[in-house]
Amino acid sequence: MIEVGVIGATGYTGLELIRLLVNHPQANLRFATSKSRAGESLAAVFPAAPDVTLIDPEQAPMKDTQVVFLCLPHAESADVAVQALDAGVRVIDLSADFRLRDAKTYQKWYGVEHPAPELLEEAVYGLTEVVRADLPAARLVANPGCYPTSVLLALKPLLDQDAINDTIIVDSKSGVSGAGRKPKLMTHYVEVEGNLSPYSLGRLHRHLPEMEQVAAWWSKKASAMIFSPHLIPAPRGLLSTIYVRLDSNWDEKKVRQLYDQVYGNEAFIHVLSQGETATYAHVNYTNRCAIGLTLTEGVLILTSAIDNLIKGASGQAVQNMNAMFGIDETVGLPQ
Amino acid sequence: MIEVGVIGATGYTGLELIRLLVNHPQANLRFATSKSRAGESLAAVFPAAPDVTLIDPEQAPMKDTQVVFLCLPHAESADVAVQALDAGVRVIDLSADFRLRDAKTYQKWYGVEHPAPELLEEAVYGLTEVVRADLPAARLVANPGCYPTSVLLALKPLLDQDAINDTIIVDSKSGVSGAGRKPKLMTHYVEVEGNLSPYSLGRLHRHLPEMEQVAAWWSKKASAMIFSPHLIPAPRGLLSTIYVRLDSNWDEKKVRQLYDQVYGNEAFIHVLSQGETATYAHVNYTNRCAIGLTLTEGVLILTSAIDNLIKGASGQAVQNMNAMFGIDETVGLPQ
Amino acid sequence: MIEVGVIGATGYTGLELIRLLVNHPQANLRFATSKSRAGESLAAVFPAAPDVTLIDPEQAPMKDTQVVFLCLPHAESADVAVQALDAGVRVIDLSADFRLRDAKTYQKWYGVEHPAPELLEEAVYGLTEVVRADLPAARLVANPGCYPTSVLLALKPLLDQDAINDTIIVDSKSGVSGAGRKPKLMTHYVEVEGNLSPYSLGRLHRHLPEMEQVAAWWSKKASAMIFSPHLIPAPRGLLSTIYVRLDSNWDEKKVRQLYDQVYGNEAFIHVLSQGETATYAHVNYTNRCAIGLTLTEGVLILTSAIDNLIKGASGQAVQNMNAMFGIDETVGLPQ
Amino acid sequence: MIEVGVIGATGYTGLELIRLLVNHPQANLRFATSKSRAGESLAAVFPAAPDVTLIDPEQAPMKDTQVVFLCLPHAESADVAVQALDAGVRVIDLSADFRLRDAKTYQKWYGVEHPAPELLEEAVYGLTEVVRADLPAARLVANPGCYPTSVLLALKPLLDQDAINDTIIVDSKSGVSGAGRKPKLMTHYVEVEGNLSPYSLGRLHRHLPEMEQVAAWWSKKASAMIFSPHLIPAPRGLLSTIYVRLDSNWDEKKVRQLYDQVYGNEAFIHVLSQGETATYAHVNYTNRCAIGLTLTEGVLILTSAIDNLIKGASGQAVQNMNAMFGIDETVGLPQ
Repeated sequence: MIEVGVIGATGYTGLELIRLLVNHPQANLRFATSKSRAGESLAAVFPAAPDVTLIDPEQAPMKDTQVVFLCLPHAESADVAVQALDAGVRVIDLSADFRLRDAKTYQKWYGVEHPAPELLEEAVYGLTEVVRADLPAARLVANPGCYPTSVLLALKPLLDQDAINDTIIVDSKSGVSGAGRKPKLMTHYVEVEGNLSPYSLGRLHRHLPEMEQVAAWWSKKASAMIFSPHLIPAPRGLLSTIYVRLDSNWDEKKVRQLYDQVYGNEAFIHVLSQGETATYAHVNYTNRCAIGLTLTEGVLILTSAIDNLIKGASGQAVQNMNAMFGIDETVGLPQ
Repeated sequence: MIEVGVIGATGYTGLELIRLLVNHPQANLRFATSKSRAGESLAAVFPAAPDVTLIDPEQAPMKDTQVVFLCLPHAESADVAVQALDAGVRVIDLSADFRLRDAKTYQKWYGVEHPAPELLEEAVYGLTEVVRADLPAARLVANPGCYPTSVLLALKPLLDQDAINDTIIVDSKSGVSGAGRKPKLMTHYVEVEGNLSPYSLGRLHRHLPEMEQVAAWWSKKASAMIFSPHLIPAPRGLLSTIYVRLDSNWDEKKVRQLYDQVYGNEAFIHVLSQGETATYAHVNYTNRCAIGLTLTEGVLILTSAIDNLIKGASGQAVQNMNAMFGIDETVGLPQ
Repeated sequence: MIEVGVIGATGYTGLELIRLLVNHPQANLRFATSKSRAGESLAAVFPAAPDVTLIDPEQAPMKDTQVVFLCLPHAESADVAVQALDAGVRVIDLSADFRLRDAKTYQKWYGVEHPAPELLEEAVYGLTEVVRADLPAARLVANPGCYPTSVLLALKPLLDQDAINDTIIVDSKSGVSGAGRKPKLMTHYVEVEGNLSPYSLGRLHRHLPEMEQVAAWWSKKASAMIFSPHLIPAPRGLLSTIYVRLDSNWDEKKVRQLYDQVYGNEAFIHVLSQGETATYAHVNYTNRCAIGLTLTEGVLILTSAIDNLIKGASGQAVQNMNAMFGIDETVGLPQ
Repeated sequence: MIEVGVIGATGYTGLELIRLLVNHPQANLRFATSKSRAGESLAAVFPAAPDVTLIDPEQAPMKDTQVVFLCLPHAESADVAVQALDAGVRVIDLSADFRLRDAKTYQKWYGVEHPAPELLEEAVYGLTEVVRADLPAARLVANPGCYPTSVLLALKPLLDQDAINDTIIVDSKSGVSGAGRKPKLMTHYVEVEGNLSPYSLGRLHRHLPEMEQVAAWWSKKASAMIFSPHLIPAPRGLLSTIYVRLDSNWDEKKVRQLYDQVYGNEAFIHVLSQGETATYAHVNYTNRCAIGLTLTEGVLILTSAIDNLIKGASGQAVQNMNAMFGIDETVGLPQ
């Protein structure tokens, strides 16, 4: 059994993570923390949650665990990561703190000095399918953002081939749980229902530098991205429609062969058949990423869907844990 | 032209009211106020709102109007009503401040001493269809609550006949805009969507004393009510399903004759045919109240639907204004 | 391992059932049938479904199973039940065919002669918590309807005490999946979204005789029911708000003690604390029934919530299977 | 008064059109037809519709009108248009029959021979803001499709300047009413709610040739389009996010000046301020088109929103009627 702890359990990713861990046959949840709700059951915070008593983070017996999951706001998270690592506990961080490898870029996008820049080099960017070889030895895993997960898994095969020249256009559509549980006008039911809102268009969203950084790791022809997130009247789900111009030596058959070869054996990545497009319904409540491919007029249209709370957050975190501890990646995850 | 002002324009009822007034052929909107958004256009607060510049309430030229609408929180509203009346301006108050005639009952349910108890006697409880004879002379109109509007219009004919003996059971279902625009966990999109929540069951909701007070005005056999509001994943609409035990001398035909007689000439009250039940779709975006009647096993089941923001708030307020100023009640209102 | 088959897999209950069975550690799904989609994968019918190949019902190797689940329209179901029983296979029928014990009542409400009246006496009405003692020996289980499950579990303790005298008023609110997957105007997205519709009010819905039949088994004072179903703009979830007049010797504390005593050890029945009311969020995606209790003015208001597809259909069917085969009832079911 | 008739009143565009016409101060609705519901009131088809009695199309007194609106399926529409024109009645056709000027293109995309190719040359493609000079003399107006309206209004200023070289990428998101009222699995509530589906990606949707045809009229550099429609869980609203690569001599300020100049005096076209993006909330229940502009990395991102049933269908049809009969275009239309 892997002994685990969760720091910050009362957000939507915290809830989803605890649901997964409580039912995980090879994990034992030692504690779950909350500053504001310590002493209460998680079931008092979410009506259908498991009956797990929340404790104050100060009381968390960190040393009794082998790995802790951090579901904290950025900047807060890095400090706790340092404490855990100092205590000899491995860390899977669901915040953005260790996703960008450059402290200055972090400061530019997140508005604060990085609290632990010395750890940036070591952190593994945890797209499990891509970095699973590094995970058994990893002390610190930066769990990817939801938008980057959908986009990077979709683009990886082509970026590896240096097949993309031009600007990549990413038009993403996310359910509302991605915006967190803190009440804001933007997430008020009456404002969202029946509405659809683009936001942070172009090069304004914090997930943009994360995506461009990783794309540059994979392809010499580092492509700029245009990124347009849209808020959708749905509680969960995330779809990215991605437009890339391919060299003329690519046709849809060749693209499809590449994807089948790269992802054919992946349990969680479903490359859809010709004519099919990815939808929320392919992936919600699962750890899947579904990818559709359509090539026309030299432009490849990729549709890439994930459940933002599972493959886009807590499910991928558990998948990373599985790989870190040498067990089958699919254990405890909805397929 | 009736010169009008709106105090407190940035809530959902304020928006709906201003939309109605701006298109009203016999009203002239002199001003709309907002403390927090003074100087901005209402279109900056709501994307599709009319382009009306909001002013600070301190700057409102009250004396240039003949009537002001108050869309303020309870207790705040009464103070402004006093100022307006002192300035010789008539008042339609959309808050709860003048709905209960007894200052002690008000204090019990609203938790504060009534700011202007001397006006309670004079205030007209503005269910337009019921009090239209009093409106031309009225200085101060208390616009009814949304739940009470749906329930009292449905029960009026029977209460007038003293036909109800037993406890009245009211099971109401409301869209979310009734809970206001201030962000709260209860109105967070992810908490509401896919969910359905009863709240304040039994005798806990502030609209209960309002309904019982009015029912007692109409019927010697003052009936207690059980009131169960439910929050529905819809932006607007309100349906009350009401159960009353009738004396055995009533059958459905006799009930239907009574309702046709009482409401047959009402422009906004639609008594539905046998077998039909009221739905949100009958009334949303209109000033209608739709009433369905089904009698079985001695129990009359009434379904009564309104748009909570129109007939349940701003539409009825305009209807009251029309009656106060002697013009056709239907002018400027969606039928 | 229990060898199981599913007849009629392409509806919402079929999908949910197969998801549960595929992940059930002690069941082995031998086949799933579909007339219209034979030869295809269930994943072609529902994008996120398990990849189970559907076969024609004529080809189903009934004899290789110990139990079959029937997810068929009423009247069709009974015929297949006869075939299965003749082949020595136990049956859990999710249709209405064996819920009513009287063939004439069945004919009155379902409009056809009962295809196998000789089996009505034997069929066990499968509210698991109530009939678990009978299940190990049962050959044929009639899985209860969704509305009756929510209502009967809520009323059982009081009916057993003969505590209810007066007409029981049941105001139920159901998500849309209860209406099936066949496209109809009533389930068209644009008709449902933003709307709320009562239907079959009073004594018109087919679940009424089912509820009254069972209530009469439990209480000498057989109470008539008034039943008002409402269609809610949500995909799943079912809440019944139930009003019963109790004798004056009952107070809320005594009621609460009764429910705690009856249901205190039930894994799937959650009696909520004082002041809490059941919501869809308490139960969706679980096999739970959550029950809230509020007593006021001599009227007990019960709120009883289930997921209509799980505890209201496929989850309860699996719970019944578990009990029939002597394994822990909770195995394979979301708690 | 303009005497008008509506052929085919029982779809969502028919309903919306009749609502507008009934409240139009300078139009008189002489008849509304329906084959399937003749003899009934439109209020029996839609609960909140105006009480207009539907007549059989065979009985329609075409000659008593000056203009008829056709809300019929394609191919059916053209035949009725011929009859109306022969009777000396002007026609506004909301179907696709007269949108494409080439009969072969029509046959390719709609699968049938064009029923009246001789009229194609004469038909005015009714984007009102663009063709208003031609409307007073027009006998036959082809009301544009919903997607093309949002896309073409957004691109017109740039196409007129020949400013676009590269492939135009159009990522559109539509509410469900655009798919019509006939029940289909694609529009079943349970399939749509919580889901988001791209469909007909690339160059497969019938609105593509319509958009490309008109773009070629306006710009010598006829640009190919990639068109990706998505179905959104909302009843109404349409947003197109459009990506165009501009020559390097364009910056956002220059683009903004162009749009302000072209559209500054348009009542229904709202060019949004810097940093603003168009949403459904800007336009639903109005005849507006809201356009947002963001230029980054040489790519202009346009967001263009309309209510698909109003500016995308019936509102624009009424706007066309207004222009055809020489009255103010805004009369009778929600702004």
